[in-house]
Amino acid sequence: MSELYADRRMRLRDRCAAAGSAAALVSRPANVRYLTGGSPAGAVLLLGPDEDVLLCPTAPGGDPADGRLDELLRQVVLPTDGGDPAVAAVGFAREAGADALSVEEHHLTVARHRAMGSVAPSLRLADLSSAVEQLRIVKDEDEIACLRIAAEIADQALGELLESILVGRTERHLALELERRLVDHGADGPAFPTSVATGPHSGRVGHRPTDRRVEEGDFLSVCLGANYRGYRCEIGRTFVIGTTPADWQIELYDLVFAAQRAGREALAPGAAYRDVDRAARQILAAAGHGDTATALTGHGVGLEIDEDPQLAPASMGKLDACVPVTVEPGVHLPGRGGVRIDDTLVVRQEADGGPELLTITTKELLAL
Amino acid sequence: MSELYADRRMRLRDRCAAAGSAAALVSRPANVRYLTGGSPAGAVLLLGPDEDVLLCPTAPGGDPADGRLDELLRQVVLPTDGGDPAVAAVGFAREAGADALSVEEHHLTVARHRAMGSVAPSLRLADLSSAVEQLRIVKDEDEIACLRIAAEIADQALGELLESILVGRTERHLALELERRLVDHGADGPAFPTSVATGPHSGRVGHRPTDRRVEEGDFLSVCLGANYRGYRCEIGRTFVIGTTPADWQIELYDLVFAAQRAGREALAPGAAYRDVDRAARQILAAAGHGDTATALTGHGVGLEIDEDPQLAPASMGKLDACVPVTVEPGVHLPGRGGVRIDDTLVVRQEADGGPELLTITTKELLAL
Repeated sequence: MSELYADRRMRLRDRCAAAGSAAALVSRPANVRYLTGGSPAGAVLLLGPDEDVLLCPTAPGGDPADGRLDELLRQVVLPTDGGDPAVAAVGFAREAGADALSVEEHHLTVARHRAMGSVAPSLRLADLSSAVEQLRIVKDEDEIACLRIAAEIADQALGELLESILVGRTERHLALELERRLVDHGADGPAFPTSVATGPHSGRVGHRPTDRRVEEGDFLSVCLGANYRGYRCEIGRTFVIGTTPADWQIELYDLVFAAQRAGREALAPGAAYRDVDRAARQILAAAGHGDTATALTGHGVGLEIDEDPQLAPASMGKLDACVPVTVEPGVHLPGRGGVRIDDTLVVRQEADGGPELLTITTKELLAL
Repeated sequence: MSELYADRRMRLRDRCAAAGSAAALVSRPANVRYLTGGSPAGAVLLLGPDEDVLLCPTAPGGDPADGRLDELLRQVVLPTDGGDPAVAAVGFAREAGADALSVEEHHLTVARHRAMGSVAPSLRLADLSSAVEQLRIVKDEDEIACLRIAAEIADQALGELLESILVGRTERHLALELERRLVDHGADGPAFPTSVATGPHSGRVGHRPTDRRVEEGDFLSVCLGANYRGYRCEIGRTFVIGTTPADWQIELYDLVFAAQRAGREALAPGAAYRDVDRAARQILAAAGHGDTATALTGHGVGLEIDEDPQLAPASMGKLDACVPVTVEPGVHLPGRGGVRIDDTLVVRQEADGGPELLTITTKELLAL
């Protein structure tokens, strides 16, 4: 595996060199993990002119959640009172003869950046910008395999919940049970805080579970995901509680389902991000839900649950093959509730069968 | 309650005015919550010369986890494509006639800070530094009441775990069960990721639960806390599994217990942070565990689990009354395991009975 990480670092180094910077400091944890295989707490990665160094505030613990560090990588464990590894890295860059250091200005705080500048005024601090995030957008098949397993785990956890009694249980407990089931099925943990929304809460993006109990006639919307070896998927479904959905529930569900399908069908290499968003959004807008629709139709997933690309009205760019994204339009009617349907898919060439659906739980409107 | 938040904001405004800045932008979520009663995702608080404005990227959801927003506070919900609230706040500060804006340089990223500067070059961006964190150190009795309840919840969850069968269960499942019990007893959620460490993992700070199962003869160290109305406590205990602890286990436990007691007894108004740390640390060092001891003897708790003050060798400052802190020395012997004992206490005057212990689970060495 080490060649993999060394290759990723080489591609980043090439981009830095092209930008006129001989050294780069990667501080965002997911970016550190992408380039080293691991993410010890607080560790930063220095890409030097000659060698790469991982600076760790304390010895890496070797917890599975940290991943497996590239053993070919030079690791330096700083003394307990060694201060900020990013500041220490400046010294290493100077010793390596670098005159400029590209840093992640979208991750470093102003205070850390100033501290780095003050220890070596002659070292020019440039902006690495989101160079690593850009490298992360297109996944290799090993990464997609992890996402596929993460999706299977989420499908299993959700499927088991549907077989249990739901009426009378609180959002909070249902969310906890889902997270326990994710771990039971082999997840390192939830990919993000599990969202369970009942009745008037249903369909709200990122709703945090409350003590509200599931009631007859509720919409129940659930959004969960598994973290498997650092890779995070997402699935969201909406159900009705009780035997017979109300007409407005059926209408709203069918509408969001149509919008979500349109979004999924718009996924193709070369498709503009905003066109995928529009495909789903215009169906909701045509039905008068332009304002109550979610701001985002979908986003990339991988080592973080919310990665580039953003499938939104103002997004610039086009999809590539092997980019995993969510498609998750929804409508929330304040006071009444709403519907969200959320899948994780991988963009594939038409010749390869088109978009690969990772989250396969049914999207029929189930009455539970 | 609103007077409470208005009063806190007034105290902050006075500090800014003294520093020559008529306006301040608070972006760190816990600081926003401290000053407004709530923390809608992404919201920032502008303390203007005349009025205070909470800028929210989307309408506050009103989830309990967000707290209860001061209804006297002016709230502005930005349009979906309104961009970064911190950048929008710059415009509000200009309109309010401010020529300088103090910002949290330890929280804002370089990129956000630059975006703020670019929209209003004539507005001077100063550093608010950790002014709000400093205000947060000394708690009022309402805050301490929340911490007391959080501690009760953690004690209950831990006590129930001790009555269950442990041998054969994985760290991951024990951690999940503890988190479920925290919620069962009324927590908004765990105060931080629950740590369960068995055998060779035991005694490690911030150990992330793995699939290792509890075995006869293990040390089992557990660290958990409840989040109650935003306030977070911490308790850590170490147990032995099986009927008869080994001699080295008893010795190590007694040593860490003595160090933790010395730390607790050093808590008093006027005591230097570093002296509290030394009181515990010197006992471990005298027994030859200077290197294997934890870097930190304790830290403040409140709206965040790791607040000022830091009870560490290099910390400057003295304790005040009504400051809640943890005392959590430990020793980890690589490959063998170790012991940590962690309580949350409130510093009180001697006349008031001395330090108030919030986490009351026994610290005897229990063999489970």
